[in-house]
Amino acid sequence: MGTGGRPGYHRATVVGGGVIGISWTALFLAHGLEVTVCDPLPDVAERVRAGLREIAPTLAQLGLSVDALTGSTDALRFDPEVASAVAGVDVVQENGPERPEVKQPLGSAIEASAPANALLASSSSGIPASVMSQAMRRPGRLVVGHPFNPPHLVPLVEVVPSPGTDPGVVEAAVAFYRAMGKQPQVLSREVPGFVANRLQAALFREAVHLVAQGVVTEQELDAVVTHSIGMRWAVAGPFQTFHLGGGPRGLADFIVHLGPATEALWAILGQAHLDADTTRLLTTQAEHFGGTVAELATRRDQAQIRLMQALGELRTAEQQAP
Amino acid sequence: MGTGGRPGYHRATVVGGGVIGISWTALFLAHGLEVTVCDPLPDVAERVRAGLREIAPTLAQLGLSVDALTGSTDALRFDPEVASAVAGVDVVQENGPERPEVKQPLGSAIEASAPANALLASSSSGIPASVMSQAMRRPGRLVVGHPFNPPHLVPLVEVVPSPGTDPGVVEAAVAFYRAMGKQPQVLSREVPGFVANRLQAALFREAVHLVAQGVVTEQELDAVVTHSIGMRWAVAGPFQTFHLGGGPRGLADFIVHLGPATEALWAILGQAHLDADTTRLLTTQAEHFGGTVAELATRRDQAQIRLMQALGELRTAEQQAP
Repeated sequence: MGTGGRPGYHRATVVGGGVIGISWTALFLAHGLEVTVCDPLPDVAERVRAGLREIAPTLAQLGLSVDALTGSTDALRFDPEVASAVAGVDVVQENGPERPEVKQPLGSAIEASAPANALLASSSSGIPASVMSQAMRRPGRLVVGHPFNPPHLVPLVEVVPSPGTDPGVVEAAVAFYRAMGKQPQVLSREVPGFVANRLQAALFREAVHLVAQGVVTEQELDAVVTHSIGMRWAVAGPFQTFHLGGGPRGLADFIVHLGPATEALWAILGQAHLDADTTRLLTTQAEHFGGTVAELATRRDQAQIRLMQALGELRTAEQQAP
Repeated sequence: MGTGGRPGYHRATVVGGGVIGISWTALFLAHGLEVTVCDPLPDVAERVRAGLREIAPTLAQLGLSVDALTGSTDALRFDPEVASAVAGVDVVQENGPERPEVKQPLGSAIEASAPANALLASSSSGIPASVMSQAMRRPGRLVVGHPFNPPHLVPLVEVVPSPGTDPGVVEAAVAFYRAMGKQPQVLSREVPGFVANRLQAALFREAVHLVAQGVVTEQELDAVVTHSIGMRWAVAGPFQTFHLGGGPRGLADFIVHLGPATEALWAILGQAHLDADTTRLLTTQAEHFGGTVAELATRRDQAQIRLMQALGELRTAEQQAP
């Protein structure tokens, strides 16, 4: 079993067969795991298989084996019942609707039937482990493993423990996502939106402000980003970027020399709102990206793969084999 | 003369021989221009030549000819006097100190001696063309051409006209920077910080907040960014990213489904300040990037070059020749 060096993970259950669940399923299959998709919808098998065929070329380009994604395989199963779907598995990745009244009973149902040492992780972006685990007998078993969409392509997984999550569960989650070729990052604690979505929201607010003010169009703003900060932040994050922009003494000198100008900008950043006028402007401009969403997404993902290959983000299939 | 297809640009004067001026000088020389560096400091020639030697390997990797950067050459001259330095040139790129009382007389002095059809551009990040041009006879001649540091490597140049800048000057600036292999982006009007620095500041404020709150360290936050939004925004900007995250109807559906969650995050983003405690924390953590500033910068720029090559950002030397 090619489970990336950690022998414990052979069988995974993906709860919820939507877009995120399909993406995890593809990634897990491509890493040699047996995967059970648990979703009560009657057409789930068709939808998942169609999704896997769509993802297969991307994972093949990333050097992974996609036989289980494109052909018939014993490694992929479907089970509408949580109790039987999680019985005997090593890891459960939950992707249910983002509502506490769904997540909480789901957490309890998973706990009730999964093996005592199985890793229980939720993809939730909005409901933290402390909320989802409230009805669990051992809330410390649950951890959030929040991917950045789509999980099969973007490396980041935010591993977010609740105050009660066992440290061993956090370690197990990190080891599991590493084995799946991901770049897990543990947060010290739960904050709404976690880290990536908060940072994204902060920049996007100013982006909406500048477009709403007519300083640039969406496409022009996107070009500004891809040709400057985007390109920079793909190779070094915002702190290192300023550290290297400060001279030999690094961030200390940056704060001395450019701190005041930075704080002056903070004071005048826009307070955008997605009101009716702004929404109309944004959606109208979005018609001019030069292709359908599907075409643009394919082009973007191809560029993403070239970038990842160039930066050596990818371990090859050989390296990932046990 | 390899000036990239626009025959008008053969001779440039770079006013100010600091870090930005040296970087422009390197780029212009590597594109076959004759460059006069205008700076009154007595050791400017030594400092510029040392800087050019340092930049040469990077530009060579980008496929440009760096003979004029590493050997003795007639293409590089020094002149401490503005009047003689700008006489007869095709373009002036100004990089003086960011103070109106320096920039304004400099603008007038450049105008007084440069040819009537020369392109007059300022690298200023803080002083807009409307302020710098106040004492000029024809303020409409001046435009800001604000690079993202370092100009020889990062593609973006923000072209920012004052309300009075001639449209023809904006067009000329765009053509010139394109000929230098850059990606110029015209802003419709002056706003403090222009676009890239405002967006950068918006994200950085939240980054400082999350580190100050102890949710992640600087290094952990940087890893979150490089493995998610940085990588995404290097290939598609924030608007296209959300457009492609919204389903077949794109940004319109994104705003319907994720707009409320986005606005909820906007409401709780941190209001960081670079006070003494925060500054101490940031500078202490910055000691742990795993190398000197010089080492890290070299490593970062190497990764940057690989990324640019992968994304095809670079026109080859062949394509750039006339």
